[in-house]
Amino acid sequence: MRNIRLTIAYDGTDFHGWQRQPQAPTIQEALEIRIEKITGGPVTLHSSGRTDAGVHAAGQVANFVTQCSIPRSNLVKALNDILPASIRVRKAEDVAAEFHARYSAKSKTYCYRILRAPICPPFLARFVYHHPYPLDIRRMARAARLLEGEHDFTSFAGSDPARKEKEQKEGSNVREVFRSRITARKKLQMIVYEIRGSGFLHHMVRNIMGTLIEVGSGKLSPEDIPLILKTRDRGNAGPTAPASGLWLVRVEY
Amino acid sequence: MRNIRLTIAYDGTDFHGWQRQPQAPTIQEALEIRIEKITGGPVTLHSSGRTDAGVHAAGQVANFVTQCSIPRSNLVKALNDILPASIRVRKAEDVAAEFHARYSAKSKTYCYRILRAPICPPFLARFVYHHPYPLDIRRMARAARLLEGEHDFTSFAGSDPARKEKEQKEGSNVREVFRSRITARKKLQMIVYEIRGSGFLHHMVRNIMGTLIEVGSGKLSPEDIPLILKTRDRGNAGPTAPASGLWLVRVEY
Repeated sequence: MRNIRLTIAYDGTDFHGWQRQPQAPTIQEALEIRIEKITGGPVTLHSSGRTDAGVHAAGQVANFVTQCSIPRSNLVKALNDILPASIRVRKAEDVAAEFHARYSAKSKTYCYRILRAPICPPFLARFVYHHPYPLDIRRMARAARLLEGEHDFTSFAGSDPARKEKEQKEGSNVREVFRSRITARKKLQMIVYEIRGSGFLHHMVRNIMGTLIEVGSGKLSPEDIPLILKTRDRGNAGPTAPASGLWLVRVEY
Repeated sequence: MRNIRLTIAYDGTDFHGWQRQPQAPTIQEALEIRIEKITGGPVTLHSSGRTDAGVHAAGQVANFVTQCSIPRSNLVKALNDILPASIRVRKAEDVAAEFHARYSAKSKTYCYRILRAPICPPFLARFVYHHPYPLDIRRMARAARLLEGEHDFTSFAGSDPARKEKEQKEGSNVREVFRSRITARKKLQMIVYEIRGSGFLHHMVRNIMGTLIEVGSGKLSPEDIPLILKTRDRGNAGPTAPASGLWLVRVEY
């Protein structure tokens, strides 16, 4: 048996997220159908984690077990030939039997892109959050850094019932954030937020982004971030920023 | 009565081209419906020319006549608020009664983008032609320049019946090409073709592009270009390149 690890990019706009669902197109289903066609057997694709509807990936990682002996480069080519152009397999690697895209992951990096231009060009509309209102980037940058370190991120956790139960079982919403930085890309009229962490709660990056935007617009101050973390109350953080701006950049193993 | 000129950008992927059709979504219809909603009267939008299904625009120009007194900047904002994100009005201007987006145009600039990377990132897939095969850019550049000047472009004209008749009436497929240049964007692994001309026949840019690709791949030589023009026979030129790579960049008045 081979354990094959795929690196995958996708435009999530037209999918209902990663995870297979009975009656909606998902990334997982689109990939599994094609992998089964090529390998000739039933396949379960394990990803590093689900992404929500409309969220994109430049470097999602997923693995599956197969008896098929197709060479890796042929597999990449064969998959891309039959996948929709909105999903691309960038790489296929043979990995040890123990490798699991989710459980073996050490950290993940997401980025969130805010376009500040007065009018959002159609070719960017699917891939950014268009927010043409004043934002104080320095305040946002200061607030972003205050999220680095090990914290209980309950205040930034979405209320997905399935996950909530699981997280309560584990007894903890503590995660470590290794990097949390805001950068201005002035020429592109963009703000880019990059966050790398040991793991992420449901909606965590988008809830953080919504909160940083409130800091940027003056509704919150950077100093509120430690207080919001402390209260462990979702009601104290900002709204969930739209999915279109969010990218899973890479998964570190 | 006011004559209002709009500058429009669109992602043409999900539309059946510019021109209104009975049962398919078009750019013209999407805009007219919204303009009528805002101005409160029936509106006919005249563009600089139709673009085909899947073709994009960064600077299409169109005008309409209205009695509505809405200020220009409010019109831009109101339209963008109700248009799909794949269509943006970049500018609205009051122009003289004689202005007509099509008949007043002096020239138009198109560009065509070819992505040469082995794998096409999902976020570019809608906006380029993915062609990961060897191309000799110098040969293509030489061939492109040979199209500059006044020529009979019958060999590069599509066979749209409605247009053919009209063009026969006018007695001529002669057009002037002011600029026809191939540029390599190495960092982006892209080839960009830019063409500016007095006017364009149906499918002309895509047929030229398909021919330049045959020059780049060695099937034709740059010196074949003058011969292809001379024969006035569509059968001698290359195939029609896909719509996704084509952009109407701007219209000059």
